[in-house]
Amino acid sequence: LDPEEARLRGHAGYYMGGCAYGAFYAIISLLREKVGGPYNQIPFRTLSYGKAGVVGWGTLCGALNGTAAAITLAVPNADYARIINELVGWYTITPLPTDASNKIGSAGGFTQTKKDYPRAILTQSVSKSPLCHASVSQWCAAAHLGQGASERMERCARLTGDAAARAVELLNAYKRGTFAPSFALDAETQSCLGCHKDSQVGQMSCTSCHEPH
Amino acid sequence: LDPEEARLRGHAGYYMGGCAYGAFYAIISLLREKVGGPYNQIPFRTLSYGKAGVVGWGTLCGALNGTAAAITLAVPNADYARIINELVGWYTITPLPTDASNKIGSAGGFTQTKKDYPRAILTQSVSKSPLCHASVSQWCAAAHLGQGASERMERCARLTGDAAARAVELLNAYKRGTFAPSFALDAETQSCLGCHKDSQVGQMSCTSCHEPH
Repeated sequence: LDPEEARLRGHAGYYMGGCAYGAFYAIISLLREKVGGPYNQIPFRTLSYGKAGVVGWGTLCGALNGTAAAITLAVPNADYARIINELVGWYTITPLPTDASNKIGSAGGFTQTKKDYPRAILTQSVSKSPLCHASVSQWCAAAHLGQGASERMERCARLTGDAAARAVELLNAYKRGTFAPSFALDAETQSCLGCHKDSQVGQMSCTSCHEPH
Repeated sequence: LDPEEARLRGHAGYYMGGCAYGAFYAIISLLREKVGGPYNQIPFRTLSYGKAGVVGWGTLCGALNGTAAAITLAVPNADYARIINELVGWYTITPLPTDASNKIGSAGGFTQTKKDYPRAILTQSVSKSPLCHASVSQWCAAAHLGQGASERMERCARLTGDAAARAVELLNAYKRGTFAPSFALDAETQSCLGCHKDSQVGQMSCTSCHEPH
């Protein structure tokens, strides 16, 4: 599968049905063309509800929800978790939208969408979180823009493309037998979990919500 | 669709493939039997990755992820969001697992699972959040048990059944034309959003993570 094609489709899909739709559509449409069969029977709209962290609740970023579902449909039960873990980890530590998306966008290269999107290099931010709410808030603060701005939507469109492209890179590596996870929790979160492992579930950065002590 | 059958299948499905798998399986399997057609072609495992808030990250509760996907597949684009919004809202304010699930569980009535689950009335807690991490942490604190306890897993199994049953109730009401959403944000969160509406996305309880000011 071509990660650059996934990036373009993820971006276009965002403006068709939101972040989660866009991410799922990008990968499943490529799988339909490459593999066909069962992928033809799964509606692109299956993940539509994931938009804005599930119909506006701001929970899990829809670009992650959509890519995670597509990855699950592409690999066996034994392997999807480590690929998705790598993708979610990448999302939390990467300045998004990526330089690759900004380069395409500022040159007007997202040609699959009919949306008249902002042709600019957009502010990048690191979410430190897989949550829509945290990711969007971080970006709005960094860009000094409101969440209703067209630049914020374009930021999420490019991010959707970025997540789809990264997922395809990971799937390609898995298929070739060269997938090697590199994400590790930061030292602070590891330190917290040293004591607080048994009373909670999760590996989101603790200090995004809790005061350190 | 029968909500009580969905509750039993959600519980059993939890022990087959996790919370998100269980919730999705409960509703899609009922739709296969009632409607057939396209529902036969969508793998139950599509939502498996949602377990423990997406492969252990503690983000969106998988019972919500699985039910939301199933609801999306059962209703048109114009309507899934308000049904899912109602379900997510219900989840955040309801003592879970429900009395209904505790009654079945303590009587050994979850007969669809092969798991030797704890036959007890389990501690109930209100998550105030759609996130796995918050939901599990609240319950562990209330029950004075670690997340690795068999009671915690059974709590999540019953909660999966509860979410599936509630989703089916909402879908039945929608189908009958009697769906009437009742969830409203609490006054505190509404007050926060009065000022902080434009700089963020979401409607999770603000004070779960932020200090009030």
